[in-house]
Amino acid sequence: MTRISLEALNAADPAAFVQAIADVFEHSPWIAERAAAQRPFATVESLHAAMWAEIASAAASTQQAFVSLHPELAGRAASEGEMTMDSVSEQGSTGLDRLSPAEVERFTRLNRDYRARFALPFVICVRRHTRASILSEFEHRLASTQQDELAAALREIFYITRLRVDDRVDGAGRPRVHGHLSTHVLDTLAGRPAAGVRLELRDISDGFPGVLMKQETTNADGRTERALIGGQPLRIGRYELTFHLAEYYRGCGVALPTPAFLDEVPLRFAISEPEGNYHVPLLATPWSYSTYRGS
Amino acid sequence: MTRISLEALNAADPAAFVQAIADVFEHSPWIAERAAAQRPFATVESLHAAMWAEIASAAASTQQAFVSLHPELAGRAASEGEMTMDSVSEQGSTGLDRLSPAEVERFTRLNRDYRARFALPFVICVRRHTRASILSEFEHRLASTQQDELAAALREIFYITRLRVDDRVDGAGRPRVHGHLSTHVLDTLAGRPAAGVRLELRDISDGFPGVLMKQETTNADGRTERALIGGQPLRIGRYELTFHLAEYYRGCGVALPTPAFLDEVPLRFAISEPEGNYHVPLLATPWSYSTYRGS
Amino acid sequence: MTRISLEALNAADPAAFVQAIADVFEHSPWIAERAAAQRPFATVESLHAAMWAEIASAAASTQQAFVSLHPELAGRAASEGEMTMDSVSEQGSTGLDRLSPAEVERFTRLNRDYRARFALPFVICVRRHTRASILSEFEHRLASTQQDELAAALREIFYITRLRVDDRVDGAGRPRVHGHLSTHVLDTLAGRPAAGVRLELRDISDGFPGVLMKQETTNADGRTERALIGGQPLRIGRYELTFHLAEYYRGCGVALPTPAFLDEVPLRFAISEPEGNYHVPLLATPWSYSTYRGS
Amino acid sequence: MTRISLEALNAADPAAFVQAIADVFEHSPWIAERAAAQRPFATVESLHAAMWAEIASAAASTQQAFVSLHPELAGRAASEGEMTMDSVSEQGSTGLDRLSPAEVERFTRLNRDYRARFALPFVICVRRHTRASILSEFEHRLASTQQDELAAALREIFYITRLRVDDRVDGAGRPRVHGHLSTHVLDTLAGRPAAGVRLELRDISDGFPGVLMKQETTNADGRTERALIGGQPLRIGRYELTFHLAEYYRGCGVALPTPAFLDEVPLRFAISEPEGNYHVPLLATPWSYSTYRGS
Repeated sequence: MTRISLEALNAADPAAFVQAIADVFEHSPWIAERAAAQRPFATVESLHAAMWAEIASAAASTQQAFVSLHPELAGRAASEGEMTMDSVSEQGSTGLDRLSPAEVERFTRLNRDYRARFALPFVICVRRHTRASILSEFEHRLASTQQDELAAALREIFYITRLRVDDRVDGAGRPRVHGHLSTHVLDTLAGRPAAGVRLELRDISDGFPGVLMKQETTNADGRTERALIGGQPLRIGRYELTFHLAEYYRGCGVALPTPAFLDEVPLRFAISEPEGNYHVPLLATPWSYSTYRGS
Repeated sequence: MTRISLEALNAADPAAFVQAIADVFEHSPWIAERAAAQRPFATVESLHAAMWAEIASAAASTQQAFVSLHPELAGRAASEGEMTMDSVSEQGSTGLDRLSPAEVERFTRLNRDYRARFALPFVICVRRHTRASILSEFEHRLASTQQDELAAALREIFYITRLRVDDRVDGAGRPRVHGHLSTHVLDTLAGRPAAGVRLELRDISDGFPGVLMKQETTNADGRTERALIGGQPLRIGRYELTFHLAEYYRGCGVALPTPAFLDEVPLRFAISEPEGNYHVPLLATPWSYSTYRGS
Repeated sequence: MTRISLEALNAADPAAFVQAIADVFEHSPWIAERAAAQRPFATVESLHAAMWAEIASAAASTQQAFVSLHPELAGRAASEGEMTMDSVSEQGSTGLDRLSPAEVERFTRLNRDYRARFALPFVICVRRHTRASILSEFEHRLASTQQDELAAALREIFYITRLRVDDRVDGAGRPRVHGHLSTHVLDTLAGRPAAGVRLELRDISDGFPGVLMKQETTNADGRTERALIGGQPLRIGRYELTFHLAEYYRGCGVALPTPAFLDEVPLRFAISEPEGNYHVPLLATPWSYSTYRGS
Repeated sequence: MTRISLEALNAADPAAFVQAIADVFEHSPWIAERAAAQRPFATVESLHAAMWAEIASAAASTQQAFVSLHPELAGRAASEGEMTMDSVSEQGSTGLDRLSPAEVERFTRLNRDYRARFALPFVICVRRHTRASILSEFEHRLASTQQDELAAALREIFYITRLRVDDRVDGAGRPRVHGHLSTHVLDTLAGRPAAGVRLELRDISDGFPGVLMKQETTNADGRTERALIGGQPLRIGRYELTFHLAEYYRGCGVALPTPAFLDEVPLRFAISEPEGNYHVPLLATPWSYSTYRGS
């Protein structure tokens, strides 16, 4: 996607502004048209806030019509090629374009029930979710009320459009849309960072053995060179970090029994805040370990 | 099995003593015959030690002949019904009587290679092992030397016969043949034992998801009513304890995010000392936990 | 003090019963006289409960008169020899008979203010307190109301008399009047209990360096042979356990820097439940440690 | 002290170079004179290394003479005003200019014994030490050998002169002469950094209650705004961090007993590497805590 600077957006004529930014809000160029008049924007976040205010302050009937313009998840629009490019990309990122027939059937049923009940498509910011958490939210929200679901859909569109603005626009004052997952291994036998520890991160949202996301080895500071996940929202879901602890201590020349009391140490945790910082360290000896949500 | 008291064994005439105890040592009644003359024994352990001394102090050729009387693991003797009752029961306890064709083939090959190399059957105290650790030991010992393997076989027969004496003889001064695995859950948010925590113990020696061994719920003292494993050797192998932590804290009225940062907490560890005490506690808050090998 | 069995108390004629037990309640033999008629008592606890019920169910004016019969703390009765033997012994156990002139002056002022305000002596079960917690309670209760202070005095007398019954009467079904303080040192570098660790327990309720209460060395199981405090109420107050960790690890042959990162490790904690179990373990490597209130 | 840039030193005529830098090495301008010929230096560290090489590669008799030019600690030179400005400042930084008569007497005796034994002044880089560690080193080195003590004196002069070069010279490639002490408080009850925790750092090298060095309050990230010690060597010695934990948890609305199980939590540790990183965090609930040497 071509990015444009906030400065250029502030300087563009209204038509060019609308052309550049209108599709942040699905099929609703009027939002960009009204926001154009409020320029200049000091920050990327205030650009999004101004656009968002147009829909947030609209009448409920306008909001209902606006939400209705959104595609279903894994739905007919997708299979018939009617989604916006953004929606195609977003749904693909979560694997919603690669469902088994049984999963397609499940989504079809959920979409139908949801629309029957609320006269709305089910809208969710898929980039903040795993497939498992989407299904869990879907079932949960089916039990909600019309009014709460209109609010829920708008809240999700807030997340969707904030990410789209962040994707498209360069400049200062960016919204906080990305989370951060990191780890750190401390060798409390030697009182120093544990260097050279192999570790894996798996997405276990859909059960075991899960999907391997990263294989890393700790550096001299006991950390991975880059964040385990960064520069994107952390998908709500369940994860497991596995540390090859016995291999590390044997490499340090520490005598361990066969088999070692602790060998592959799993830390299993869930992420519930896509924009949060999750630091999940391992403090270990060959005979003990601890972990915690750090920062 | 009918148990007999040490007192009765001490008082029996030699023939009755031999009849009662000879089959502790496979097909070798001469060991019991010689031990009979050394009575009385003050403890069950000294009875075993006296019998063991007969073979431990014998010539290497006698030892070699003695070891050769032992059946192969999962071998021809088993399938043709030629094993002693003890061997049948011991091998069955580890599932060696319920192997898949591929496993039978693997054991057949290992037995053949081992006998070709050392002119001995592969002897191991199966009650101290899982199937996985037997296979691992088998491969490992195939790379050993004749002299070391004779010693290894005798060491295993020491364990086998010590367990058999413990099974058969009542009385004081018993050998330490059993291990102990226990856990304890401490709620460090409230500073008290965590009562009502559901947990499972799995044998993961053969990989995941493993074999469910126990399902328990902690009592008011944060412990299980009985040891997770007790009254028998702990089989050398890999295990996983899983604690339903989020369920516990929600039950206490603690607000947790959805999904909870820590939900099912796995502690994965190995046992290498079948006669050892393994205490594997969980100290936890909704956001942190630690474990260690305690006592 | 001569102890008497519950059986003997149940069998005694009423006068003998009263003589044996009357002084549990200060200067109020009528309580024992009424309780005599309710015999036999199945447990020591029910004996105390029956006596206690006499005063708990009495009119407020009777209760007020009863409380008034109690001596002041460190007061005139003590210096003039008018206290019951029990009160002398109890106040002495907390050092209230060995006050400095400034402390005597402080107690005199508190006693005077308290009596002026509530027309009652200040009553507290000194065996459940340190001098510091008595003073803290005294200041706190001075700000209370007449009604609450009558209730507070009765609650303290409940504790006082329960301890006195426990002192005097043998038999089944004893009240829970004693607490328990213990520790445990785990060497998480070696994965086993830390044997031979020197440790000290200090009462720091009155500040530092505190009063040395115990010097112990851990046994093979990493524990002290007996409880640090047991067989009596734990006095409400602040304590510090100090563990000679560097000495222990050097003795194990572990190379430590000079000076060692962790040498004498202090665990500072308070006791607020005199009848509670406090288990305060140390889990340590040369570079890390943790503690918690266990059970 | 006026600082000079490495660039200026490289460009200066030899006499100016010597004048600027000679007094890094006590009373020995020949070292700077020889180093002048080796310019230019790419880094501050290589400037020091070149000067150091002159003395390190000299004959033992030259080294002995050079070491002899150094002043005694807290000695006659100090009281008679014969020390270089650097030595005055360095000794003052450790309080060696403010000794009690008993301490002066102790230093006088140690200086006399040391000189009698090794025909050298006792040299130590005081900026890397507390008074307690200087005395401990002094006693320890008195038991050494002539050869080892010459080497020890030179090693200390290496540290002294490296710090002096770091003080005087600006530029790239600086030697690592400073350490770093930091802390971090994690609230594992809430799973987030503990903000607003008051804490104190004390130097307890000379015993209790020690000397208050810092009073801080943790920020939103659970850290102190600046390092507890930074921008200088960490003095070898013993320290205590005290955290006001009960105050913090009460401020969070958590109900604690009176007195709180954990109130002021002390972490007592020693520093043995003046140029090291010491991160000493506290992970705590109202009922448990842990610490470790982190990085």
